[in-house]
Amino acid sequence: MTSLSAASTTTDFDSPEHQARLADLYRDFDAAGLTPLWRTREGLMPSTPEPRAVAHRWRWAELYPLAARSADLVPVGRGGERRAIGLGNPGLPGDPYATPTLWAAIQYLAPRENAPEHRHTQSAFRFVLEGEGVWTVVDGDPVAMRRGDLLLTPGWHFHGHQNVSDAPMAWLDGLDIPLVSSLDQGFFEFGPELVRDTTTPERSRGERLWSGPGLTPVSQAGQVRPSSPLMAYRWTYTDAALTAQLALENEGHPGVVEPGHAAIRFTNPTSGGDALTTIRTEMHRVRAGASSRTSRTTASSVWQVFDGTGVMIVGEQHYDLAHGDVVAVPSWYEVTIEATTDLDLFTFSDAPIMDKLSLLRTEVSS
Amino acid sequence: MTSLSAASTTTDFDSPEHQARLADLYRDFDAAGLTPLWRTREGLMPSTPEPRAVAHRWRWAELYPLAARSADLVPVGRGGERRAIGLGNPGLPGDPYATPTLWAAIQYLAPRENAPEHRHTQSAFRFVLEGEGVWTVVDGDPVAMRRGDLLLTPGWHFHGHQNVSDAPMAWLDGLDIPLVSSLDQGFFEFGPELVRDTTTPERSRGERLWSGPGLTPVSQAGQVRPSSPLMAYRWTYTDAALTAQLALENEGHPGVVEPGHAAIRFTNPTSGGDALTTIRTEMHRVRAGASSRTSRTTASSVWQVFDGTGVMIVGEQHYDLAHGDVVAVPSWYEVTIEATTDLDLFTFSDAPIMDKLSLLRTEVSS
Amino acid sequence: MTSLSAASTTTDFDSPEHQARLADLYRDFDAAGLTPLWRTREGLMPSTPEPRAVAHRWRWAELYPLAARSADLVPVGRGGERRAIGLGNPGLPGDPYATPTLWAAIQYLAPRENAPEHRHTQSAFRFVLEGEGVWTVVDGDPVAMRRGDLLLTPGWHFHGHQNVSDAPMAWLDGLDIPLVSSLDQGFFEFGPELVRDTTTPERSRGERLWSGPGLTPVSQAGQVRPSSPLMAYRWTYTDAALTAQLALENEGHPGVVEPGHAAIRFTNPTSGGDALTTIRTEMHRVRAGASSRTSRTTASSVWQVFDGTGVMIVGEQHYDLAHGDVVAVPSWYEVTIEATTDLDLFTFSDAPIMDKLSLLRTEVSS
Amino acid sequence: MTSLSAASTTTDFDSPEHQARLADLYRDFDAAGLTPLWRTREGLMPSTPEPRAVAHRWRWAELYPLAARSADLVPVGRGGERRAIGLGNPGLPGDPYATPTLWAAIQYLAPRENAPEHRHTQSAFRFVLEGEGVWTVVDGDPVAMRRGDLLLTPGWHFHGHQNVSDAPMAWLDGLDIPLVSSLDQGFFEFGPELVRDTTTPERSRGERLWSGPGLTPVSQAGQVRPSSPLMAYRWTYTDAALTAQLALENEGHPGVVEPGHAAIRFTNPTSGGDALTTIRTEMHRVRAGASSRTSRTTASSVWQVFDGTGVMIVGEQHYDLAHGDVVAVPSWYEVTIEATTDLDLFTFSDAPIMDKLSLLRTEVSS
Repeated sequence: MTSLSAASTTTDFDSPEHQARLADLYRDFDAAGLTPLWRTREGLMPSTPEPRAVAHRWRWAELYPLAARSADLVPVGRGGERRAIGLGNPGLPGDPYATPTLWAAIQYLAPRENAPEHRHTQSAFRFVLEGEGVWTVVDGDPVAMRRGDLLLTPGWHFHGHQNVSDAPMAWLDGLDIPLVSSLDQGFFEFGPELVRDTTTPERSRGERLWSGPGLTPVSQAGQVRPSSPLMAYRWTYTDAALTAQLALENEGHPGVVEPGHAAIRFTNPTSGGDALTTIRTEMHRVRAGASSRTSRTTASSVWQVFDGTGVMIVGEQHYDLAHGDVVAVPSWYEVTIEATTDLDLFTFSDAPIMDKLSLLRTEVSS
Repeated sequence: MTSLSAASTTTDFDSPEHQARLADLYRDFDAAGLTPLWRTREGLMPSTPEPRAVAHRWRWAELYPLAARSADLVPVGRGGERRAIGLGNPGLPGDPYATPTLWAAIQYLAPRENAPEHRHTQSAFRFVLEGEGVWTVVDGDPVAMRRGDLLLTPGWHFHGHQNVSDAPMAWLDGLDIPLVSSLDQGFFEFGPELVRDTTTPERSRGERLWSGPGLTPVSQAGQVRPSSPLMAYRWTYTDAALTAQLALENEGHPGVVEPGHAAIRFTNPTSGGDALTTIRTEMHRVRAGASSRTSRTTASSVWQVFDGTGVMIVGEQHYDLAHGDVVAVPSWYEVTIEATTDLDLFTFSDAPIMDKLSLLRTEVSS
Repeated sequence: MTSLSAASTTTDFDSPEHQARLADLYRDFDAAGLTPLWRTREGLMPSTPEPRAVAHRWRWAELYPLAARSADLVPVGRGGERRAIGLGNPGLPGDPYATPTLWAAIQYLAPRENAPEHRHTQSAFRFVLEGEGVWTVVDGDPVAMRRGDLLLTPGWHFHGHQNVSDAPMAWLDGLDIPLVSSLDQGFFEFGPELVRDTTTPERSRGERLWSGPGLTPVSQAGQVRPSSPLMAYRWTYTDAALTAQLALENEGHPGVVEPGHAAIRFTNPTSGGDALTTIRTEMHRVRAGASSRTSRTTASSVWQVFDGTGVMIVGEQHYDLAHGDVVAVPSWYEVTIEATTDLDLFTFSDAPIMDKLSLLRTEVSS
Repeated sequence: MTSLSAASTTTDFDSPEHQARLADLYRDFDAAGLTPLWRTREGLMPSTPEPRAVAHRWRWAELYPLAARSADLVPVGRGGERRAIGLGNPGLPGDPYATPTLWAAIQYLAPRENAPEHRHTQSAFRFVLEGEGVWTVVDGDPVAMRRGDLLLTPGWHFHGHQNVSDAPMAWLDGLDIPLVSSLDQGFFEFGPELVRDTTTPERSRGERLWSGPGLTPVSQAGQVRPSSPLMAYRWTYTDAALTAQLALENEGHPGVVEPGHAAIRFTNPTSGGDALTTIRTEMHRVRAGASSRTSRTTASSVWQVFDGTGVMIVGEQHYDLAHGDVVAVPSWYEVTIEATTDLDLFTFSDAPIMDKLSLLRTEVSS
């Protein structure tokens, strides 16, 4: 047998005979379920991330009426479980995924409705753009949902919702459904059809135990939990923290991320890490007239306008932003935020996944 | 507007009018790129994992000749980069993936061939079923590849291969290509076409620094690295460790995983964790006549027979095992191993991913 | 030379000749600075801890007048640095140490006085029994001190105090001076004689950045710090957390340490661990009429009565407790707390040291 | 009432009346067991560490004969437990401590002698300068002791020694007795008088399970232990690792600590950290003619010459070094090593303690 290096210099690769033998080989590969790397490498291993997901903006002004229409036509109940409407990235047709790892949905609960209890390995949160009157019951602990609040349901915690008011309520749901699905890690279990505790306390038991800043119940001290024991991050605190960062900037002290740009991350008090195991959640505030530096990261993210107006530039797209608008940012797309008025943006991303797997890269333009 | 709770008790959901309004709604959802959870939940959120990937066994007796044929027909070189032939799971048609996260391939290097240097964020290893004569050069450090050895190329380390012998050599490549692809984390960079160090030392520099058991160079002490600084796990050590576990069992001392079943994990000496950030690698030995307990885990895995014969039962499938055979095990499939002769199995899995994301579940039958 | 085993069976150890040779040997040991273990083992290596420190109680009613007298006679200033009066454990004569690792002192600042800035590797806190009007300035950040507050000055942070009121103020100082001294780790540096920022804000800058429960400034996220970035733990929050635990107990929910006994630990929000690297700080509340279980731990501790009355049994000693009383508990002494009225106790201990060194043992009587 | 600041400017502190009142106050302080910081601060809180321990060198040529003499006069047995002779630092009179945290002793076992089993919370190791024939049995696992080996007995592991040869054997014992004593953490328990397993295998069971580089038994994988599961670090491996570092230096590759100076740290394979919880152990090799840079650290340490000759400069002291000599280095003393011949030095220190408590400082002269 001649050596390959000899072969590769003397073989006439363009000869019909060679081409015929190659075609035979590829047919046999196919039959055996084999794929040669040399025919797929560029697709599988690009020089920089080439997400199929695209930048996209959904208008709240369109989302909300559609959700409201569904309330008239589709009951909430066992089986379908939730009146949640997933925002599908146009680059990922067929899958109702905002990004390859993240699910974003508008969930709508009509007056006096109840969404039955269940639990699943998927991690979830709700972010409340407006309204109140719903309690989400997490492992038996009723948690009020109000404007500006972030509410958690970490993986494998039972949860259901009930609307005790005469007004409908809608909010943003975020989950890691696409990740858990692509990793084949999904477990799901039904709980009671009515939430197990129908009381409507001002503050959940978890908040009563865990809301003191830096205060840990001794009965639970020394135990690092994968996700936060605090199920509610109240707007009052979030707003105060952002206000403080900008005030400190005015006074000449550190705190903000960059000039005119305050931001807090929702974290797990038992570890200081992200509140959820797979999803990073943050609230940003950019002063009227200020802009963020342009940056990109390999984490994909979803943003929702909580308050104010401005422009978000994602890759080549310029999105003017209004109340409730939702924007998807794929991996490695450049992002710039420009605030027309003071602009509050909630965001969630898959950064904890990339961080834990030592894959996260971030670049900020100078 | 009537309240939904009223609606849901009084509406005639089967009426043609209702059905028409619903059809309208779903059309508008589609137009807006929205997907209601209640129409997809069971697919997205199953009660237990429902992998599309299936159990599968590839025969080495078929793989090897195909790889050898390709050596005559396709040169190794810049662009295609490697003569690696991916084993595609029949349940994942179109994608050359062994499982949803793992790539497994047979790589073949003809006598005197050289595979050019490159680096990528994907983590990789080679496991050598047979043969020798190839050096893989990792960040400039030449690492001999020989029978039974596990060789690492952690993410973003330059690497190329050269065969300095007159015989071809083939081995198993394992990578996290599907994971990195689905997460959009791929970066790739070309290096020199010829490996930068063509010497062929017995032991790599990394081995010389890191092969003392429990010995850490003071110049690098106290630094936990995400992946192992040791690029080669030699068969001599692996074999000795497995032999010792079974000998200890004979002497009445602990060490084996279960009766008749020895196993070692390849780990990172700077942390004690897995050698690679995203891939768990292990070698198992089951005594002739012994069986493993039946177990299942949410990690998906690939197994290769290194030596011996036996049967591997994966879900409903019974695979008799011969030298070099490769088996794919999807998430949550039950696995039992029965050894006819003493049976050595190399395996790799995505368990570190699930572990770091707090998603890993494992069950062992009593 | 005969072998020892022979020697040890045949030698007459009581013979005058043997005794003379032994005396010679011990003289030579002494001369060479050698000590045979067989003559000291029981002292060096007891079967259970045999602390020289003893249980002790200092009466606030005696401490405070002495501190006040010193204010008339001794100025605060550069060199002596602080009008702090250390509580010396009677079992450790010569050393002003409350326990072998912990320093406890009453510090007194007269009206309009200033204690100059310095920094040291020793970790410190202040706990305020009563009064207000003093600001401690920690690395340039003025922190108000008020009743019930815990204020930190972690190691190597500059700090000074100023009393801006017309009333004197006294508080409890806790430091790890004995530990740092016995380990030879002390560094000390003088700062300005007057605190560098004489403003008297309601809330320190650190509190403004870090007081949101579970909220982390993004500019500082992902950085685990050895000690807390929060320099003040306010009584309002502490009181609310203890109140909540007892209320939850009344409602039938978990939270308390044991029946009738609430407790919180002051923790570092960047890690969930202890607020200081070497000192654990906690506040306990025992309901009127309730008792703690008897327990002992190898950590040594100091307790101060913040509010209420009761009895603390430490080893054989029964201490009736009044406002401000301080109790030292050596390693491995049994402790029981009995509350006559609702009883609030502040405590600090060296448990983090023992925990990090894998030496901590704790037993609770059933 | 006049304010204190007024007082401190107008009081005549030198007046006899003031002095008398002050004397009264100090008398009352004494009676109450109180110590004012302003009278002790400089001793308690120096500007840089002021260890009482001093630099010291013990000559092996003096130590060994004394140990041998004791073998004739004092049996090893229950109660005294060990024929170990502690090296007392001259700066710490009364305490047989090499440094404030570390105990160093020469232990001597005559032919056929047996040292009974016990366990204690103190961590211990043996380093073997010369000889063989003794097995130390750690939790029932017999571990051969031979020249150049480091043997561990982590805290609370039963251990005893037996000499099965016809020659005496002596070695260096290192423990954290002073630390555990000053922290009141000592527990001690007697085991059987004769070691429970009198077999004398070449390799201990722990070595058979844990000596594969980077190989972890799957039965024990994923469990980080506070101290190493490997009880023996063999000279063969240590020597090979030091040899490799210097060879790599010759070849132009990294590995050594500094030019001509190789060093390895003995580590715990389950974590990559120090082999013992409180004691760092290392072996250094300096080439003939080379010198280390001058450095100082707040860790205190003990060094023993294993092989070769040279000079060790500790603070102002110059110690010429011969086989077996032991040197104590207090906190913050400058150290320089000069090798006359190739010089192998074993060293142990309390660095893990300082590291875990965030107190460690190190400076290297440029």
